[in-house]
Amino acid sequence: MSTHPCDHSFCSGCDRFGAWYRLTGDKGTAEAKAKDICLEQTVEFPADLVPKGFVQDEVLGRVEGFERCSPPPDEAWKALITYLNADTGSELTQLLNVLYGNISLKKGFRLESLKDCWNLWDKFKGPRFGIQGIRELLGIPKRPLLCTAVKPMGLSATQLADLAYRFAMGGIDIVKDDHGLANQPFANFTERVERCSEAVKKASEKIGRKILYAPNVTAPAGDLEKRAAFAKKYGVGALLVCPGLTGFDSMRLLADDETLKLPILGHPAFLGSFVTSSDNGIAPYAIFGQIMRLAGADATIYPHSGGRFGFSLDECRQIVEGAKVPMGNLKPIYPAPGGGMSLKRIPELKEFYGNDVMFLVGGDLIKVSPDIEKNCRMFLEMVNQDKSLLKK
Amino acid sequence: MSTHPCDHSFCSGCDRFGAWYRLTGDKGTAEAKAKDICLEQTVEFPADLVPKGFVQDEVLGRVEGFERCSPPPDEAWKALITYLNADTGSELTQLLNVLYGNISLKKGFRLESLKDCWNLWDKFKGPRFGIQGIRELLGIPKRPLLCTAVKPMGLSATQLADLAYRFAMGGIDIVKDDHGLANQPFANFTERVERCSEAVKKASEKIGRKILYAPNVTAPAGDLEKRAAFAKKYGVGALLVCPGLTGFDSMRLLADDETLKLPILGHPAFLGSFVTSSDNGIAPYAIFGQIMRLAGADATIYPHSGGRFGFSLDECRQIVEGAKVPMGNLKPIYPAPGGGMSLKRIPELKEFYGNDVMFLVGGDLIKVSPDIEKNCRMFLEMVNQDKSLLKK
Repeated sequence: MSTHPCDHSFCSGCDRFGAWYRLTGDKGTAEAKAKDICLEQTVEFPADLVPKGFVQDEVLGRVEGFERCSPPPDEAWKALITYLNADTGSELTQLLNVLYGNISLKKGFRLESLKDCWNLWDKFKGPRFGIQGIRELLGIPKRPLLCTAVKPMGLSATQLADLAYRFAMGGIDIVKDDHGLANQPFANFTERVERCSEAVKKASEKIGRKILYAPNVTAPAGDLEKRAAFAKKYGVGALLVCPGLTGFDSMRLLADDETLKLPILGHPAFLGSFVTSSDNGIAPYAIFGQIMRLAGADATIYPHSGGRFGFSLDECRQIVEGAKVPMGNLKPIYPAPGGGMSLKRIPELKEFYGNDVMFLVGGDLIKVSPDIEKNCRMFLEMVNQDKSLLKK
Repeated sequence: MSTHPCDHSFCSGCDRFGAWYRLTGDKGTAEAKAKDICLEQTVEFPADLVPKGFVQDEVLGRVEGFERCSPPPDEAWKALITYLNADTGSELTQLLNVLYGNISLKKGFRLESLKDCWNLWDKFKGPRFGIQGIRELLGIPKRPLLCTAVKPMGLSATQLADLAYRFAMGGIDIVKDDHGLANQPFANFTERVERCSEAVKKASEKIGRKILYAPNVTAPAGDLEKRAAFAKKYGVGALLVCPGLTGFDSMRLLADDETLKLPILGHPAFLGSFVTSSDNGIAPYAIFGQIMRLAGADATIYPHSGGRFGFSLDECRQIVEGAKVPMGNLKPIYPAPGGGMSLKRIPELKEFYGNDVMFLVGGDLIKVSPDIEKNCRMFLEMVNQDKSLLKK
């Protein structure tokens, strides 16, 4: 499938992959933690009992890098641990388990990044579309994409569809369900998808360009595929999935499905606990960048700094990096910053993100004036505006 | 299905359920956070835009309790937020989303406990066996259960089966796969399950009592059910699932499956980030007690205090509470403390847990002496020993 550019020092024939962990404590403590990861994430056995030969030499994790990343008093170190590719069985569930299964339960261990491993990443198809694929689908070669959500929960399918229509008429590129719309009695999944999909198609025909409706297919196990298939049948343009609720691999299943072939927006609901501490969990770079991509998201939604959530600009920058860093053949994906973004921040956001971004503006498109279509047009104008004009 | 004992002040006809959250900050800050939960977890809309009538009156979360839980300087408050049952669509994925979807991404909000709601919990079957069901299955009316794991990753299926046989011959009640055994080339799933299941059955027949082998069926989406069905066909006695990797609802699907009818051990891999902070995430009571139960686990595995992991005794106590607190008709489930327990700690563990516990001892059954069967018999003797004898 691909030429093999690997030149990792740790990778003999590329049968190992690696990950960087941030470890709190002084040097001795951090070194002990690094060794602990090697055991805990593979053999889960006391060091002196690990069988000699293959298990000890190959299966066991290895510390292959170690450096200081923060001076005292908040001393912390970074360790590169490598694992045998075969430890993962080429399955995403087990890959996540090796990366951060048991260690998640210990304090002061944070997964920072996955190190490129061509041979392993090639086992995963990742995003089907990525940035370029969605641009081609929409016929938008360069500018940032516009995304919004129909809500709130509690409205009827007709009311939501009306909203979707107005967003689409206003020129939004991707109209998604709010991630809280599931299969509630007020607007059950099938009726909502039928009506919203129809509304967006109608608007799309009127204004003469493709607009994607992305229903939330996050659902109980077994129903996820059914809802996605139903949505496909009703002509939706994309899918919204919350992998924190369904498991990352369920999103991967939809991305790989040859009968669907729809772009997937990955939503961070229920994943926040991974990123609320800088000493524990998984760095935004890894979870909202690299892992979302491995699991097939074409866009990764997260709250931009300064909205309703507390992400820092640096964390947002990390996500953008993780969404595009080389990982085998995995396509780069859209960062989709949202979480309380207002139209007046678009110039600042454009400055920060450049063109390869999907701006997600929700409530503000309803709030700034009673004319929703006009608000959407303003959104598009602001995104299209030349930077030099904005500075006037 | 059940009589309805609900006398909640907040629950008119029991169409609402509730959850307690711990909120950091002074009173004003915590009050604002409580109101924020009401919006963020339901309508995800600015307060002034929430449609009047049904959405504002019913769909929106409500603050129905507020009290101080920690004095300054680490000031924190507890708020009871209630939601309309219909907000969840009676689906576990959406229930988790309402409880902690977006709020997980904000700092200083911790989900502490789910408040009993008979009408909502009755939508979920929960654990099929629970403590009593597993006791009946094994024919062990009173004493604590003994559990261990075959490992390490990297051994062949034959080697793992040999280990399983020796554990079973020594009198272990439940021999599970290590949660790191997935479908690796060293011991692929089908061969491992065939051999280990056969080994445990052979030992079971020899010693004349039922012993359960529990393979790890944690697998990619779509394969989980297939592996469980394969395991059932090969006569396994139980299943091990890591819901952090598969999604909680995938475990629920297996628990509900009428063609399987097998006890399920829920493993905490990849869930640790929920519990590593006392200001964020989900309390052990809720995630390893209540949510594991809602999702169908018959036993909840977690690291006991003082082993390789940093759980406190109080956290372990919380899990025991959450595993048995009244929740509609949901059966109480086994706490299964493990994570580096040694045989010499059994008296102390027995004192702490009483009889309704599944002790999980791993490496120590291989370490204390070269005779694994003898070590297992010692484990059983220690569990059976009268407390008065132990104090000699």
